[in-house]
Amino acid sequence: MLNKEDIILSGVVGIYSKDTNQVFQMMYYGLYGLQHRGQVSTGIAVNNNGFVDYFKDLGLVHEVYSKEVMERLRGNIAIGQVRFAFRNEEKAMQNVEPLVVGYRKGALAIVHDGKIVNFLKLRDQLEDNGIIFQSDLDSEVIANLIARYHKDDVEEALIKALEDIVGSYALIMMTNDKLIAARDPYGIKPLSLGKIKEDYILASETCAFDTIGAEFVRDIKPGEIVVIDNKGIRTIYEKSKDRKLCLFESIYFARPDSKVDGRSIYLTRIEAGRILAREAPVDGDIVIGAPDSGIVASIGYAEESKIPYAEGIIKNRYVGRTFIQPTQELREQGVKIKLNVLKENIEGKRIILVDDSVVRGTTIKRTVKMLKDAGAKEVHVRISSPPVKYPCHLGMDTPSSNHLIASNLTSGEIAEEIGVDSLSYISLKGLLEAAGEDNGFCQGCFTGKYPILKY
Amino acid sequence: MLNKEDIILSGVVGIYSKDTNQVFQMMYYGLYGLQHRGQVSTGIAVNNNGFVDYFKDLGLVHEVYSKEVMERLRGNIAIGQVRFAFRNEEKAMQNVEPLVVGYRKGALAIVHDGKIVNFLKLRDQLEDNGIIFQSDLDSEVIANLIARYHKDDVEEALIKALEDIVGSYALIMMTNDKLIAARDPYGIKPLSLGKIKEDYILASETCAFDTIGAEFVRDIKPGEIVVIDNKGIRTIYEKSKDRKLCLFESIYFARPDSKVDGRSIYLTRIEAGRILAREAPVDGDIVIGAPDSGIVASIGYAEESKIPYAEGIIKNRYVGRTFIQPTQELREQGVKIKLNVLKENIEGKRIILVDDSVVRGTTIKRTVKMLKDAGAKEVHVRISSPPVKYPCHLGMDTPSSNHLIASNLTSGEIAEEIGVDSLSYISLKGLLEAAGEDNGFCQGCFTGKYPILKY
Amino acid sequence: MLNKEDIILSGVVGIYSKDTNQVFQMMYYGLYGLQHRGQVSTGIAVNNNGFVDYFKDLGLVHEVYSKEVMERLRGNIAIGQVRFAFRNEEKAMQNVEPLVVGYRKGALAIVHDGKIVNFLKLRDQLEDNGIIFQSDLDSEVIANLIARYHKDDVEEALIKALEDIVGSYALIMMTNDKLIAARDPYGIKPLSLGKIKEDYILASETCAFDTIGAEFVRDIKPGEIVVIDNKGIRTIYEKSKDRKLCLFESIYFARPDSKVDGRSIYLTRIEAGRILAREAPVDGDIVIGAPDSGIVASIGYAEESKIPYAEGIIKNRYVGRTFIQPTQELREQGVKIKLNVLKENIEGKRIILVDDSVVRGTTIKRTVKMLKDAGAKEVHVRISSPPVKYPCHLGMDTPSSNHLIASNLTSGEIAEEIGVDSLSYISLKGLLEAAGEDNGFCQGCFTGKYPILKY
Amino acid sequence: MLNKEDIILSGVVGIYSKDTNQVFQMMYYGLYGLQHRGQVSTGIAVNNNGFVDYFKDLGLVHEVYSKEVMERLRGNIAIGQVRFAFRNEEKAMQNVEPLVVGYRKGALAIVHDGKIVNFLKLRDQLEDNGIIFQSDLDSEVIANLIARYHKDDVEEALIKALEDIVGSYALIMMTNDKLIAARDPYGIKPLSLGKIKEDYILASETCAFDTIGAEFVRDIKPGEIVVIDNKGIRTIYEKSKDRKLCLFESIYFARPDSKVDGRSIYLTRIEAGRILAREAPVDGDIVIGAPDSGIVASIGYAEESKIPYAEGIIKNRYVGRTFIQPTQELREQGVKIKLNVLKENIEGKRIILVDDSVVRGTTIKRTVKMLKDAGAKEVHVRISSPPVKYPCHLGMDTPSSNHLIASNLTSGEIAEEIGVDSLSYISLKGLLEAAGEDNGFCQGCFTGKYPILKY
Repeated sequence: MLNKEDIILSGVVGIYSKDTNQVFQMMYYGLYGLQHRGQVSTGIAVNNNGFVDYFKDLGLVHEVYSKEVMERLRGNIAIGQVRFAFRNEEKAMQNVEPLVVGYRKGALAIVHDGKIVNFLKLRDQLEDNGIIFQSDLDSEVIANLIARYHKDDVEEALIKALEDIVGSYALIMMTNDKLIAARDPYGIKPLSLGKIKEDYILASETCAFDTIGAEFVRDIKPGEIVVIDNKGIRTIYEKSKDRKLCLFESIYFARPDSKVDGRSIYLTRIEAGRILAREAPVDGDIVIGAPDSGIVASIGYAEESKIPYAEGIIKNRYVGRTFIQPTQELREQGVKIKLNVLKENIEGKRIILVDDSVVRGTTIKRTVKMLKDAGAKEVHVRISSPPVKYPCHLGMDTPSSNHLIASNLTSGEIAEEIGVDSLSYISLKGLLEAAGEDNGFCQGCFTGKYPILKY
Repeated sequence: MLNKEDIILSGVVGIYSKDTNQVFQMMYYGLYGLQHRGQVSTGIAVNNNGFVDYFKDLGLVHEVYSKEVMERLRGNIAIGQVRFAFRNEEKAMQNVEPLVVGYRKGALAIVHDGKIVNFLKLRDQLEDNGIIFQSDLDSEVIANLIARYHKDDVEEALIKALEDIVGSYALIMMTNDKLIAARDPYGIKPLSLGKIKEDYILASETCAFDTIGAEFVRDIKPGEIVVIDNKGIRTIYEKSKDRKLCLFESIYFARPDSKVDGRSIYLTRIEAGRILAREAPVDGDIVIGAPDSGIVASIGYAEESKIPYAEGIIKNRYVGRTFIQPTQELREQGVKIKLNVLKENIEGKRIILVDDSVVRGTTIKRTVKMLKDAGAKEVHVRISSPPVKYPCHLGMDTPSSNHLIASNLTSGEIAEEIGVDSLSYISLKGLLEAAGEDNGFCQGCFTGKYPILKY
Repeated sequence: MLNKEDIILSGVVGIYSKDTNQVFQMMYYGLYGLQHRGQVSTGIAVNNNGFVDYFKDLGLVHEVYSKEVMERLRGNIAIGQVRFAFRNEEKAMQNVEPLVVGYRKGALAIVHDGKIVNFLKLRDQLEDNGIIFQSDLDSEVIANLIARYHKDDVEEALIKALEDIVGSYALIMMTNDKLIAARDPYGIKPLSLGKIKEDYILASETCAFDTIGAEFVRDIKPGEIVVIDNKGIRTIYEKSKDRKLCLFESIYFARPDSKVDGRSIYLTRIEAGRILAREAPVDGDIVIGAPDSGIVASIGYAEESKIPYAEGIIKNRYVGRTFIQPTQELREQGVKIKLNVLKENIEGKRIILVDDSVVRGTTIKRTVKMLKDAGAKEVHVRISSPPVKYPCHLGMDTPSSNHLIASNLTSGEIAEEIGVDSLSYISLKGLLEAAGEDNGFCQGCFTGKYPILKY
Repeated sequence: MLNKEDIILSGVVGIYSKDTNQVFQMMYYGLYGLQHRGQVSTGIAVNNNGFVDYFKDLGLVHEVYSKEVMERLRGNIAIGQVRFAFRNEEKAMQNVEPLVVGYRKGALAIVHDGKIVNFLKLRDQLEDNGIIFQSDLDSEVIANLIARYHKDDVEEALIKALEDIVGSYALIMMTNDKLIAARDPYGIKPLSLGKIKEDYILASETCAFDTIGAEFVRDIKPGEIVVIDNKGIRTIYEKSKDRKLCLFESIYFARPDSKVDGRSIYLTRIEAGRILAREAPVDGDIVIGAPDSGIVASIGYAEESKIPYAEGIIKNRYVGRTFIQPTQELREQGVKIKLNVLKENIEGKRIILVDDSVVRGTTIKRTVKMLKDAGAKEVHVRISSPPVKYPCHLGMDTPSSNHLIASNLTSGEIAEEIGVDSLSYISLKGLLEAAGEDNGFCQGCFTGKYPILKY
């Protein structure tokens, strides 16, 4: 499982409606359905006949928006985002999207999921030309590039700007009268198109369509730029490379009820569990999943291995930001804030614990200790992704190699370090089979071979 | 699954510590572990050498308490509660516990899980004697009764007061220097005793002990009154009837990682699923559980029936109180706020849906419709509790018979009403077998025979 | 000037309307006009056909009430209060009025300005009879007394209850269908009756009538109990002693635009300044008032003495509760949070500083130091009330004698202590002349002779 | 008196300290002392060894800042602002200063009091060069200009930027290691320098120095740019025109206890009242001031005319933003939220009402009506500034001529329109005499002759 600090992730939504009746509510529930892609901040910008107003703040979707905001943000085009904080927590407020700016051609609002790898170089060039920056957002660089190409119309300016940009992105933009979506040439980040009556909706994942009752139309293609305005929808640019979707979308990021580029995330994870059971069988009494990220794969593992699936660890569903920290003494006594072991299922048993990934190794170590403390006779860890050996510069923000446990230790050494009786990973080949293709994914964190090099 | 409005439930915690070092934090995490027993309000009272201070408010545990409150509430005895609102939402604030009063003998603070059935009669008698009431809380009646018997010491006064009281209760009280716990003679409500170093902790469920790292000592016996003070712990009263623990604790209320009166809730539910599979087998492609209350039984059902267990419905984990309501149009389009169907698992399949109970029938009907809309070929509903035919006056606040679907319709009629291909319930005998005893439970909502009559 | 901690004061309002149209708003603005009588907490209870709902919280009127509260609190009878906190700051929340209770005869809500001197004795008697208390409010004792006399109708019960009570009070009560007002037999606390169309309004001060556009009808008489219901208004009890209105209402508490018992507060203060100028003339360059309480008397002093009136001290109008405290260093540097000296008017001049009263002497000492630091050549202090030598047990909560500077030092000694060139007080005779009567006021804090003895 | 919507005003503060000990607290109290210059929003940026962090929000100084913010914002250089909202209320949040940006040379933070008249032209030019804008702030244009001249060091870049800028400004800026202040060449906006031990403080008004206990050093000269860093303070630019300080600072904006460019605001206003009494004498019973802006001049008028000064209108000191609006009916009944007439002083009397200015005429009309309703026999209005006939484009944001009552009507017509017995203004000559100079002030709103033309 990834730590919070290892993730650069966000969920983006765009809506183009025929009327202004319920655009805010559609956006609200769309973001609600993507909340798993970012819990630190959220923002919505709405276009009302060329006047763009917005609201953004730190917090969850259901915490941030009030009736007053709903009544204020009326219009027929909207973009919105949920995101994790990153880079600089203290500056969190200025790093909340949408970025809304005015420029030569009017208003421009941007939300972005992904990571521009030549961000610093582009920012440097822009600063050399006297540009100021008010945030650390990639989208501020993108907005500046678009504005610099302002002599052309916005579509051409965007095309030029994106030709300067190297990195992963699912971008949704709003001008005075258009909704624009763009996906990076490798399609590293997912982006899908839905429809609800006459209205179009763009979203990072298809589960957002289900949330608001829209129908899935198609995925935005890698390298495609799509414009939606009062004339309908059209592709204005298409120059894809081979698709290299981030494998971690399949493994961890996406919600199991989403389809990404046509493939069900749930089925991928079940299948990964099954393949893992074949590749790394082990004798045990029960199969349990690490909540919540390992649950689906553990069901697949249990099915394939014919070893009973059980719940071994219970998650407190009411966890939230708290000001009250446990005392040192409570910590030593083993205060269990988020997770508790189901002792009846664990005590004296041989446990097969399935998790989605091991990055630093600290989380799995803590989980294993809980199981051992509860009397597990044996603990066998099975991971439904290969060892993460290489840091990611394209959107996962995984730590440098020396913090990646699999980069420094063999599986045997890791098993010893985390105190388990055995540890196995699915093979990369196995995972790709589960994900439905043997090529078409960025596998950089497993192989060190990235579609886009680091700057 | 029960509707929110059908439940009178709360979680109570009491702590007696040798020092004042971390009583607030222990209480905080104890309540945190019982949050599933009530999400509307919470309060903590702390005793500092006979001076009792408290804080209570509407909201979840992690929302209500601040550092300032933590620093203020220092002492060595504490009681606390989480609860659902009931009876009168508008007066919610005055119905938040602990109730803290001053009387002849000093301070008295009370938290109560349960329902006093002769509440109105007792209140009437007290009002006849000129007593005023500032809330609708049972505990205000109890406090008044104790105060009226004030000539005796508090222990005797409490014994007398409880002899006046008919109903279900797990009570935790705090006087100037004592922590007192009482469980009703039938033990309808659960209450357990734990220990952590030299400190005692009382809680509705044992999962609260795990949360703070305490060890389970024993259950408070039906009809037992226990006093904890600087001389240690002692039982001052014991006059139990046959135990009649609320069966719904096993079915729905308690957290699966709790043990209630010595029996693991998880194992009860797994076993109920297994027995249900034997009693009501049906051919199907997958077994799914209604999240979250039907999950454990569905795992048991799948195991026993050898039909694969799968996730069929995904729950949004970030749902909270929101001010933004979907428009009528969005509602018609099928906005899915809390739950979404995993279409890949449902489409074209014969689904066995396991849920813990059917009360009004509205929730299961909605869930079934989602499955059918997603293309389920067949839907077979299996319920891990018998038909709820009788209203409960002892703590569940289930609606009157004419709202209980099983009170009015046969299983066949219900199956038709909710649109399923078949519907079966576990037998009462089967459930009692799963729960580990064939007598010892209040079965009133299933049989109409209550240990305590309605007033 | 009094310190915040020396005051037990509150402002009370009651409204009986023919319809439910705007009772909340009238109450809101009525309390708004009495905000100077208490800034710690406020509450409103509204009667809607016998159902009494309420809202109360810490804060100013404009901070506490929201639109949601306004929409909830609909009805045709209402009572409300603004108050200072007292006795026990930590328990502030439970000491916020209105007190709303249920008893034999239905609902009863009470607001109270004043102080019951036999509170502890009555509470003791009630506790002896098994009564519990949930606050430190006088009104909880009053409510209990009324409930104990419940066999009679509420009017008779109230009469009996008030016969038990010794102290100062302006009480406004609400039953299921009546608004009731009572003023203590000495009329120590003010209470007036106004009318607006067909609606009646009761308020501590007439400025509340001006605020909502009502007309003054008459003062409630000392010892009078008035009932307002759908049959109109009637006096049900009248048993006054000689009126002994608190002189500090004239000196400090009441707003200058109020009339109390028929006498304009502004004119009393102007006249006190004039008499003070005659009684204690002194040569000076300008007359200034201590903001805001000494301003009016200083205008009178200037007029009579023919010495120019000027502003010498400027008050920051935007002061509020703050979490940021000045560092010790800033304090030493002389950070001026509330007041600043107008150096141009002070430097090198002989200043006559008029203030309304001296209680502990700490405030005037600080003010004088500011003037001296700003270069005042001479500072002559003139006080528009006599020396406060005796503590008050009837509503001012002034400290015990040993904290009353005039109780321990002569005027000459005080002048030396606070560092002024001269100090004079108005004579009691002079003040009474200004207040318009030579008897009819409680003068206890000046003479030690109280209409009601201390318990 | 000006309406809120007629004002573009803010208060700015800068601090350069030897240590980081209490810079935040000094800034906090400095802004506190300037709260009268803007109540809509406030922000503070602090420099900690080149790392600039900031916090800004809507609200008053004492509402916006928390202990957490105080602990976060540590450093040795700080700038801060209080401001009125303007131009676009809905976008209020992005128009809160300080503006903090990164550019080629590091961090740059700006606060600005004043109005750039060629804002649109400069913004247009910048947009033509591909610059984006995230606010409507003048300071965003200034920051962009500085960044464009980035090849030079910041001091030279600032000098060049300010040569492009036409308008009124008191600017305080912060770079990685410097505090910089600039005042426009005409000195339209005030800016003063103070010192406290080894620390420098810059502020819009000297009352901010008094608030934190600093000493006044000197005024920043019109057209002067001052740099403060670890080498001390130095003037890097000086190119003043004839000073043309905004006369409304003397009339209305500044706090009476401030000295602006060496002249006491209080004395100016007293003297204006005196001259007004000589220029426009009238027989009357009392002189009253419109609270609070007319009070000082009314004292001067009373002094000179020998007609008694009195309080005629009482202001509610506890007014704040409220969600509760009076009903239409209450409005018709004459609900008095902010002001109440002191009937005793008004009824049957000939009133001389002094106010500082008449802009639209709506406020004075309402005030006069209150006096007439209270029974004033005659009302004579005396205004301590000349008729405002011309709109201001330099910082007052007064409405266009057709909303300026004096631009359309003669004094006689205005007297009739507002329903008074006579109306007189001070002469411009008289006001200038009171303000201490006969030239040196911008008199544009009275004469139509502006030091800077409108763009």
